[in-house]
Amino acid sequence: MSAPFVPCGIITLTTDIGHQGPFVASMKGVMLTRHRSVTIVDLTHNVLEHWPAEAGFWLERCYHHFPPGTVHLAVVDPGVGTGRDIVAAQVDGHIFLAPDNGLLTPMLSRRPAAVVRHLDLERTPEWGIVTISATFHGRDVFAPVAAELAAGRLKLEALGPPAGELIPSWIDEPEVSEDRVKGLVITVDNFGNLITNIDASLIESWPDAAVSIGRHDIPFRRTYADMKPGEYLALINSYGVLEVAMAESNASEGLSVERGAPVYVRRSGGATTVA
Amino acid sequence: MSAPFVPCGIITLTTDIGHQGPFVASMKGVMLTRHRSVTIVDLTHNVLEHWPAEAGFWLERCYHHFPPGTVHLAVVDPGVGTGRDIVAAQVDGHIFLAPDNGLLTPMLSRRPAAVVRHLDLERTPEWGIVTISATFHGRDVFAPVAAELAAGRLKLEALGPPAGELIPSWIDEPEVSEDRVKGLVITVDNFGNLITNIDASLIESWPDAAVSIGRHDIPFRRTYADMKPGEYLALINSYGVLEVAMAESNASEGLSVERGAPVYVRRSGGATTVA
Amino acid sequence: MSAPFVPCGIITLTTDIGHQGPFVASMKGVMLTRHRSVTIVDLTHNVLEHWPAEAGFWLERCYHHFPPGTVHLAVVDPGVGTGRDIVAAQVDGHIFLAPDNGLLTPMLSRRPAAVVRHLDLERTPEWGIVTISATFHGRDVFAPVAAELAAGRLKLEALGPPAGELIPSWIDEPEVSEDRVKGLVITVDNFGNLITNIDASLIESWPDAAVSIGRHDIPFRRTYADMKPGEYLALINSYGVLEVAMAESNASEGLSVERGAPVYVRRSGGATTVA
Repeated sequence: MSAPFVPCGIITLTTDIGHQGPFVASMKGVMLTRHRSVTIVDLTHNVLEHWPAEAGFWLERCYHHFPPGTVHLAVVDPGVGTGRDIVAAQVDGHIFLAPDNGLLTPMLSRRPAAVVRHLDLERTPEWGIVTISATFHGRDVFAPVAAELAAGRLKLEALGPPAGELIPSWIDEPEVSEDRVKGLVITVDNFGNLITNIDASLIESWPDAAVSIGRHDIPFRRTYADMKPGEYLALINSYGVLEVAMAESNASEGLSVERGAPVYVRRSGGATTVA
Repeated sequence: MSAPFVPCGIITLTTDIGHQGPFVASMKGVMLTRHRSVTIVDLTHNVLEHWPAEAGFWLERCYHHFPPGTVHLAVVDPGVGTGRDIVAAQVDGHIFLAPDNGLLTPMLSRRPAAVVRHLDLERTPEWGIVTISATFHGRDVFAPVAAELAAGRLKLEALGPPAGELIPSWIDEPEVSEDRVKGLVITVDNFGNLITNIDASLIESWPDAAVSIGRHDIPFRRTYADMKPGEYLALINSYGVLEVAMAESNASEGLSVERGAPVYVRRSGGATTVA
Repeated sequence: MSAPFVPCGIITLTTDIGHQGPFVASMKGVMLTRHRSVTIVDLTHNVLEHWPAEAGFWLERCYHHFPPGTVHLAVVDPGVGTGRDIVAAQVDGHIFLAPDNGLLTPMLSRRPAAVVRHLDLERTPEWGIVTISATFHGRDVFAPVAAELAAGRLKLEALGPPAGELIPSWIDEPEVSEDRVKGLVITVDNFGNLITNIDASLIESWPDAAVSIGRHDIPFRRTYADMKPGEYLALINSYGVLEVAMAESNASEGLSVERGAPVYVRRSGGATTVA
């Protein structure tokens, strides 16, 4: 069983909407109109446009920094206005709300105890939702539902029927063999650090592991300052995944590597052959 | 008569200040110092610099997403430190506060019942405003006045005399004839969607309408996913205006069209001659 | 003696983390978990990466816009995970928390009455801090400590021993002679205005002062609108320092001048020789 959801009055927002225009603010206005004392935290509005994978990756990696009872709303929604479903899931006392487009699929595949529902759009009038535009469900559906959940007036189970199969993830899980892991760069942060989908648990028993990316072999270290400025390093970052960095500089620019690039970890160092 | 203003403790901020430096934060600090429990929502700080038209456009299109009793502060203020006036207006139970530089003029011209005042700078000492810099009235005048209005300690009518004629808008309203509407791109969102100042009401009775922009004819659709990725479409967006988009891609880049570009809608399709 | 610290429940955040990824949101989640009713204000997350000087400059110039009792957290931390210290200082009833890397040094050198402590990392378990990553002390140390200070559960004096000498600033104070001041551009704002570290007090008694930067002589004025659009001017800005601007345009682009560029003020105008 998943932990019960006891609302704490916090909603986090993760979108690809950016900071231009009033789009995110309209969502906040809708939420504040329904739940005046809600606390809204911007997780980020700068995930890659139209690519749900990054949003789901970050949510899975950071939701536990918030108190149980938080509602996490993620809107990366290229299929808005079509028949695509909306999924709501309860995990560890948190609720997640997102389009059923693969965004939450990797996280939920690892949490079989999660309670997962599809939102029944026909019930929206019961929740006071009377107008739904064709192009902005973030404001017209997700925001009011999140506010009602955070206010404790709406229960997950009331949103709709148990969800069956979810839409698959947009990216593959890492390929793991006895002496090698292949993953990919899932996002690049403000410093140009390359953040991968390779979980620490996959490689932590390899004390001599070697990392390669884009024909470069990168040494493993503990923190950025273990190298001189301008030198590359790989480390397990503070979100528990492999990261490739350039000390006090920009690894993405230095290596000419972007999101999606393959990353290899081999059990033991030495010459690396990139497949 | 306009609806009465009953403060709900929310202030929205719309500026061209961006996210560099502590400018917006200083405004928030001033507001929190006067009204500790105020809720401040960033509408956007990325409207085009020194161009009040976009700020006013967005405010008119989204204020109703916030509860009545909200104070909406807009600071796009190239004339700061000169004799330019400050205007405060009460509309539908909301208060708007902005430089008198055309920012609020289009909205107020459509709302003759609005109560509109000019702020009397000589009264500011009564409100505890003792130092006013020459270059940042957003922090030194607008922020404290907004906080006092949101706290209910200051009434719109106390700000100054009824405003006469306001400074005209920086952009023309759409030109409307029996079989054609000409408007312009007023802003571009994070996805590259081209958002125009053509209200849905001007064209909604034209089922066969055709849109042209920059020598391209664009088909009308209901939502982005009605086209294949990479195809152009026009639609009525979730703020009730005509928008030109490229499905899952960037119309602004694809069409090489920026803010200010003319957009034409003709009553019936077929070959379009761009004037 | 410094004014006492009576917490008002506000925390400001100043970082070089930007808006990509959930890094800042994780810090906020940690703070909200410990202090549910805290008000968190983003000062800016866009200071120059890995350069503590700009963060300290802005904090010194704007902390007084917030109420006494505010905790100001600044995380520009290229030495994270090494033995670098953390410094906490009480100034005018505010508390500042930052890495001991020069960030707070200029401000504290001007405030000898400040109470300054080094944080004793060995005490963190007493404060419920059980896991500290090697790469994100902003989330794992600074955020929980700031929350405890803002909640009034932890006193500055309990953080650790009195700090001795702090790490020096990364930039020199302005060079002041009888008829000339030499400073530098410390940051560029969203409008391209060049903001210097030359305090108004250094030059305010020079009514005929002349400013030069990058071989250009710039006239002194009171506000932007005192010049025609496109003309350069120098002024004392709303944070009390010399600024070089281009009316309704971008001085940084126009002059090809960036952060770090030297700026000269001479007591009297006329031909300027740049050293």
